[in-house]
Amino acid sequence: MKLVPSLLERGMRVVDLGPDYRLPDPAEYARVYGKPHVDAAHLKEAVYGIPELNRATIRAGRLIANPGCYPTATLLALVPLWNAGAIRGSVVVDAKSGTSGSGASLSPTTHHPEASSTVWPYGTPEHRHVPEMLAAFRTFGSGAPSLVFVPHLVPLVRGILCSIYPTPSDGADPSTWSDLYRRTYAGEAFLRVGGVPRLPWAAGTNRCYLSVQPVGGTAVVFSALDNLGKGGATQAIQNANLLLGLPETAGLQQSGFGV
Amino acid sequence: MKLVPSLLERGMRVVDLGPDYRLPDPAEYARVYGKPHVDAAHLKEAVYGIPELNRATIRAGRLIANPGCYPTATLLALVPLWNAGAIRGSVVVDAKSGTSGSGASLSPTTHHPEASSTVWPYGTPEHRHVPEMLAAFRTFGSGAPSLVFVPHLVPLVRGILCSIYPTPSDGADPSTWSDLYRRTYAGEAFLRVGGVPRLPWAAGTNRCYLSVQPVGGTAVVFSALDNLGKGGATQAIQNANLLLGLPETAGLQQSGFGV
Amino acid sequence: MKLVPSLLERGMRVVDLGPDYRLPDPAEYARVYGKPHVDAAHLKEAVYGIPELNRATIRAGRLIANPGCYPTATLLALVPLWNAGAIRGSVVVDAKSGTSGSGASLSPTTHHPEASSTVWPYGTPEHRHVPEMLAAFRTFGSGAPSLVFVPHLVPLVRGILCSIYPTPSDGADPSTWSDLYRRTYAGEAFLRVGGVPRLPWAAGTNRCYLSVQPVGGTAVVFSALDNLGKGGATQAIQNANLLLGLPETAGLQQSGFGV
Amino acid sequence: MKLVPSLLERGMRVVDLGPDYRLPDPAEYARVYGKPHVDAAHLKEAVYGIPELNRATIRAGRLIANPGCYPTATLLALVPLWNAGAIRGSVVVDAKSGTSGSGASLSPTTHHPEASSTVWPYGTPEHRHVPEMLAAFRTFGSGAPSLVFVPHLVPLVRGILCSIYPTPSDGADPSTWSDLYRRTYAGEAFLRVGGVPRLPWAAGTNRCYLSVQPVGGTAVVFSALDNLGKGGATQAIQNANLLLGLPETAGLQQSGFGV
Repeated sequence: MKLVPSLLERGMRVVDLGPDYRLPDPAEYARVYGKPHVDAAHLKEAVYGIPELNRATIRAGRLIANPGCYPTATLLALVPLWNAGAIRGSVVVDAKSGTSGSGASLSPTTHHPEASSTVWPYGTPEHRHVPEMLAAFRTFGSGAPSLVFVPHLVPLVRGILCSIYPTPSDGADPSTWSDLYRRTYAGEAFLRVGGVPRLPWAAGTNRCYLSVQPVGGTAVVFSALDNLGKGGATQAIQNANLLLGLPETAGLQQSGFGV
Repeated sequence: MKLVPSLLERGMRVVDLGPDYRLPDPAEYARVYGKPHVDAAHLKEAVYGIPELNRATIRAGRLIANPGCYPTATLLALVPLWNAGAIRGSVVVDAKSGTSGSGASLSPTTHHPEASSTVWPYGTPEHRHVPEMLAAFRTFGSGAPSLVFVPHLVPLVRGILCSIYPTPSDGADPSTWSDLYRRTYAGEAFLRVGGVPRLPWAAGTNRCYLSVQPVGGTAVVFSALDNLGKGGATQAIQNANLLLGLPETAGLQQSGFGV
Repeated sequence: MKLVPSLLERGMRVVDLGPDYRLPDPAEYARVYGKPHVDAAHLKEAVYGIPELNRATIRAGRLIANPGCYPTATLLALVPLWNAGAIRGSVVVDAKSGTSGSGASLSPTTHHPEASSTVWPYGTPEHRHVPEMLAAFRTFGSGAPSLVFVPHLVPLVRGILCSIYPTPSDGADPSTWSDLYRRTYAGEAFLRVGGVPRLPWAAGTNRCYLSVQPVGGTAVVFSALDNLGKGGATQAIQNANLLLGLPETAGLQQSGFGV
Repeated sequence: MKLVPSLLERGMRVVDLGPDYRLPDPAEYARVYGKPHVDAAHLKEAVYGIPELNRATIRAGRLIANPGCYPTATLLALVPLWNAGAIRGSVVVDAKSGTSGSGASLSPTTHHPEASSTVWPYGTPEHRHVPEMLAAFRTFGSGAPSLVFVPHLVPLVRGILCSIYPTPSDGADPSTWSDLYRRTYAGEAFLRVGGVPRLPWAAGTNRCYLSVQPVGGTAVVFSALDNLGKGGATQAIQNANLLLGLPETAGLQQSGFGV
């Protein structure tokens, strides 16, 4: 947010991988990130960019807030259900992330002897991605469910699996949700709807996998992606492609590994 | 169930580590395990044995059904809340288990190249431990919540972390639940109530760790144990100690590793 | 070896990923693999195919024996030194392999609870790849060093690191070996000579990384590759490209992951 | 070494887990550790303490230098062979260590995303444990072999496996070495001689496992222990027991886990 104003002034288009333009309200930014927002002027025009949910707006923008990893996985699963009125009230999102999600900075939670031998819940009472998700619901539709979001570090390097437990609306039938996803994401290059995904399918790619499975008289939705891919750098490339009028899949049709 | 009748006839006491005496209803057993129950006569007297929840009944019994790993972790967390009326309706239990929980039999899901690189949800639409847990709720109190239970294999060997999302009853205050646990389990040798547990604390022991953390306007309860310890063999020893009138901690005060 | 004769008869060219044509002597094949060789007639024309060591012969052939993973890593490191007279006598090859090297068949050694918690040496007194390597030395030059080869499974999925301890010839200077490699492999698309490699650099690719490091008054040579890539399927593609007159890098310039 | 003089002055006995009293020569200490030795006066009386190799001297001492993890594993395997004249010349020691061997300090090499996906060789051109081992050979006998020592971090938490490749003396028969170990270590509580060890057998204990296996016309010796146990803290307890006249196994007959 310190650099962006001068970039825009020079006529450049910006995809910001950091969190500075993800929350529309500068006061909330200050509360969540513990420091004042110094570019509130551009917050209004910033576009929260998940192409499958708001492609046209991204194309028309010049400043894109690239979403966090957990929000991308969660919103791709929940926004279609929420906007269709299929769910209501509260949603439990139990997320499992590989340790690369914690970044390159060293920390005790990613020290190998610790990280490789436990499942590490964190993010209570409120992970920074919760206000980001709530704001995104309001951007992509109207209102927002209540989120009970608990992330966990698991002994993997890359990949996020969100196990999502929505509350179906009265009369809603979760057995139709797979079809709802297929209709919503028809023609999308990077969305896959089907059986329970494995994280290596997503690793190194810009893909997100969605799966609806019946359980306990209701349904669980699994959403899987690479936290450094669709949950990070490759979604930024996808957003940049849209901003620049390039084919949306440019640079994203081969793996990010081994090149 | 083939062997048990002859053992009881000889006057022996039995702790059964398998599932044969965990479900009180032989018809449900047949449905869940896909084969008829051949010792329905002894089902009536079998005691589902979690000492912290029904010590006196175990002591008076002669046939103990040693609980499954997931039910032990879940019931130690939920039964006190349920019996106190603190929760109602539906509970999401998102369980993460090390691969030793799948047993010594080889399977593709525990083949190292597969198991070490993903989080593997399974147990949909109904894991075998769900009817076991529902029956246990009715045994330990009255009625049962509705369970949305999804187990996941994670790339660890030993340990289960259940992330439990109950629905508080109207007016219930989750910030009091830690104290409820401390009162319920006061004096227990193997129960720990406190901060978020790490799985190596439990590995090789008969301990279960409970932690209540605020999140999303409600609370998540974490329950951690060793699936082969309190969730398996060491709880069987604890039950056997009770049956035999031995000190309950006999043989359980040192680690199961390295001996 | 059962299928190959009929394929050749039809005029097809063959790259065999199995071991049937790697040993020139059918009697040795019978000893090592415990069954008779049933196509000794074609053994004479089979070409052991490591393009960087015998590209011209591969191009002229019609039946290529695609090498094993350990031999590829070892021979790319040792053949240049041996043929230059830089080493003599005995070589210790201490190999560490990810568990995918054991294949898709289930076995106790790759059962996750076992494989993820130890380093598992095997292959004593003689791994099947030792006679393969000795035969290859004689094919690529004259004579062969004595090999002390011990493979170990490590808790990784993909990748082999061979730590190679040669005996320098009298007057040989290991500090010149990096340059020897650079000259030998000048222009090669898939060979990298430099600092100590990390296995993820090789994973999903057809690359082999070589590094010479001084230690204990002599030198250790590290050779790293993906056991399923340059040590397996991608080298087969490279060999097929040569057989078919295609560009040698066809299909090998992007990662084998995520496609 | 800053604290020790005052402790000895007060009549205390000391087991030092750090490296300050492991090298008899203060000039070598300065070279290896990059700082001057400030208590050279006590270096002369310091006893390098591996009870199975010099129990009597430890008992008579008051300042014990507790050995490093790699030296303990290596010396227990090599000293009996060296002192019996069974080996000569140069020995390759290819060591594989879990990441807890790097200590609790955070470093890029033990950052989970890095450490969990590779085998990481280090310690070239000379690991600090090499001069320690050479000095120990001279303490425990006469002269020392030449050591080619290469440690590797593997994606495990606890445990060291040293794969040791000695050069047998003329006429020496490695098939007798297992018996030599059994005689040397007869009656030892913490030494095991036999088949190829797995690291979990040693984890949390003070045990060292030795195994001799034929390979390539010679033999490889495997030495396995817990780098934090026999290679660290529990050997310090064993040394303290000797210093204090306690039973040598006091405190060491149960696992260091789960207590």
